Amino acid sequence: MSSARQKLTSRDLARLAGVSQATVSRVLTNHPRVSEVTRARVLKVLEEENFIPNSLARAMKTGRTETIGVFMSRITSPFHAALLDAIGRKLASRELQMIVWDLEHHPQEMATQVMRRRLVDGSIFTSAAFDSRPDKVAVDSGVPTVLVHRGLDDLRCDQVVGDNRRGARELGDYLIRCGHTRIGLITSPLTVSTGRDREHGFRDALKAAGIRLPAAYVVRGSYDHQDGHAAVRKLMALKTPPTAVFCITDILALGAVDGARSLGLRIPDDLSIAGFDNVAMASWESYDLTTVDQPTEAIVDAGVQLLIQRIHDPSREPTVTTLPCQLIIRGSTGPPSKHAS
Amino acid sequence: MSSARQKLTSRDLARLAGVSQATVSRVLTNHPRVSEVTRARVLKVLEEENFIPNSLARAMKTGRTETIGVFMSRITSPFHAALLDAIGRKLASRELQMIVWDLEHHPQEMATQVMRRRLVDGSIFTSAAFDSRPDKVAVDSGVPTVLVHRGLDDLRCDQVVGDNRRGARELGDYLIRCGHTRIGLITSPLTVSTGRDREHGFRDALKAAGIRLPAAYVVRGSYDHQDGHAAVRKLMALKTPPTAVFCITDILALGAVDGARSLGLRIPDDLSIAGFDNVAMASWESYDLTTVDQPTEAIVDAGVQLLIQRIHDPSREPTVTTLPCQLIIRGSTGPPSKHAS
Repeated sequence: MSSARQKLTSRDLARLAGVSQATVSRVLTNHPRVSEVTRARVLKVLEEENFIPNSLARAMKTGRTETIGVFMSRITSPFHAALLDAIGRKLASRELQMIVWDLEHHPQEMATQVMRRRLVDGSIFTSAAFDSRPDKVAVDSGVPTVLVHRGLDDLRCDQVVGDNRRGARELGDYLIRCGHTRIGLITSPLTVSTGRDREHGFRDALKAAGIRLPAAYVVRGSYDHQDGHAAVRKLMALKTPPTAVFCITDILALGAVDGARSLGLRIPDDLSIAGFDNVAMASWESYDLTTVDQPTEAIVDAGVQLLIQRIHDPSREPTVTTLPCQLIIRGSTGPPSKHAS
Repeated sequence: MSSARQKLTSRDLARLAGVSQATVSRVLTNHPRVSEVTRARVLKVLEEENFIPNSLARAMKTGRTETIGVFMSRITSPFHAALLDAIGRKLASRELQMIVWDLEHHPQEMATQVMRRRLVDGSIFTSAAFDSRPDKVAVDSGVPTVLVHRGLDDLRCDQVVGDNRRGARELGDYLIRCGHTRIGLITSPLTVSTGRDREHGFRDALKAAGIRLPAAYVVRGSYDHQDGHAAVRKLMALKTPPTAVFCITDILALGAVDGARSLGLRIPDDLSIAGFDNVAMASWESYDLTTVDQPTEAIVDAGVQLLIQRIHDPSREPTVTTLPCQLIIRGSTGPPSKHAS
């Protein structure tokens, strides 16, 4: 079935795509110096003409597997699913495959083995944690590696993250501008950069406004809807409950909204709730959640770009890229209710 | 780092796990005839002792890659994310890796190539469609293949699906028992077995009760929240709108709930809405969605089991396994309102 199709030459392709043969060749070899517009045009022609580059022959010549390892966790979390989706789309556009390891399912030693066996040309880590090892093993083993979404301060490798601290600071400033002085925090263990930086940004905002954060207003748990649900019920059982709650992820905030509703509370009249990430659900009518948008696509684009550059030039100095996040004000937040003050 | 750890022998492991050496060997070689309990116990010891079986050496001897190709679509849909999560967990427990291809991102020819290049020991398809080719290519190429979740009537390969037709029939019967006679249907193109079978089951229920389904009550679109949202608004703009709506997936139903809320309608007082799949969100307070539970874990367990058997015995006759689904009645449905009748 493919033999007839493969008679098309790169010269034919160049003509059809309206580019030079050299450009076609760059697209076929995943060269980083091709504009997205040009790449897309060439790939479109490739697809329309059912042209299959002989990846296997190329892999044998280059010693590359054309496969990237994606080490992640929490696939069922909407944010992480969207991240994986963006990574898959970006890698596919470069004709790269992805092997996905969920670090919650695989023993960490399996990731270590992958590096030793050179099953992948490079690795993307989305869930780096201060207490995890596989990302460090990847870097030590010399496998080109990029961290996206979560970073690690002390790891010498390319990293692309959102500006979580500034995003949370802006959200905190906004809640304070609304008139809140009793603001709760539903957060995670301090073992990941996203959680730590968002908590710091939130505390920065309170400190600048001279607002105290009593220990009783901080609920530190895990990352699921049910954790947000339980946490908000705990906060609202306090003698003087908060009038607003900042949850360090949207999924915790969605849980908090449902937990508040289970108590008969109206959002935002009785309680303002805000999250972080801007997952698709945050915009749905039932939640209409104030949050901070993480530039997921841009983080992934930059991360994959850096990874491909590193595969071609392993000696380049690693860079840490921090991309701005954007406050999104929706209906789940407002001024504190008169009854509560 | 690993050399010291690998000094542990399978005899030591057998002693620590309280099983025979033969059993340890079966677990290490992914033999299907080991109980989950035993496998888990041995794997736990493996993990605790940081014992790394020499997969690479084994792969070289057996000619296997220890890698399964997962061909899916719609990773960002909560149901498909849960499916991928279950597949990843199950494969990890067998020490198998997964390469994930999203068929929406990759040109179909890439899947074809994977089969030709024998990059994987076997393939799992979660999104088989009557108009797609890769699953057929997989089967034709002789790569062990299993379809899970969605089936294909005419494809000779192992398939594990939920009993979608019966599940939708039971849901339809229930809505009719509630007293509804004007029931809308928000559905998908008829190109996938799940959508087709659910629609058939729903029509079976109406037919058995002598209830008509006017063409205006059927909105056929795509699969996203926004499609359910738009569809319900279209239905409610009819001169005689339905009093209940069956959406063939939960994500469409969540969109329908939000679309109805955007019109100021109360659920279920003004409109009953039901879905299918029982995704995690369906149980959250804000939706509290009546739905049909698909046995996702059981479908994946059976599918992976069949795939591993097929890898060991390619000549076995293919089987189609249909697992029962369960009606879950929640707060999004009830009797039709008096105003509407």
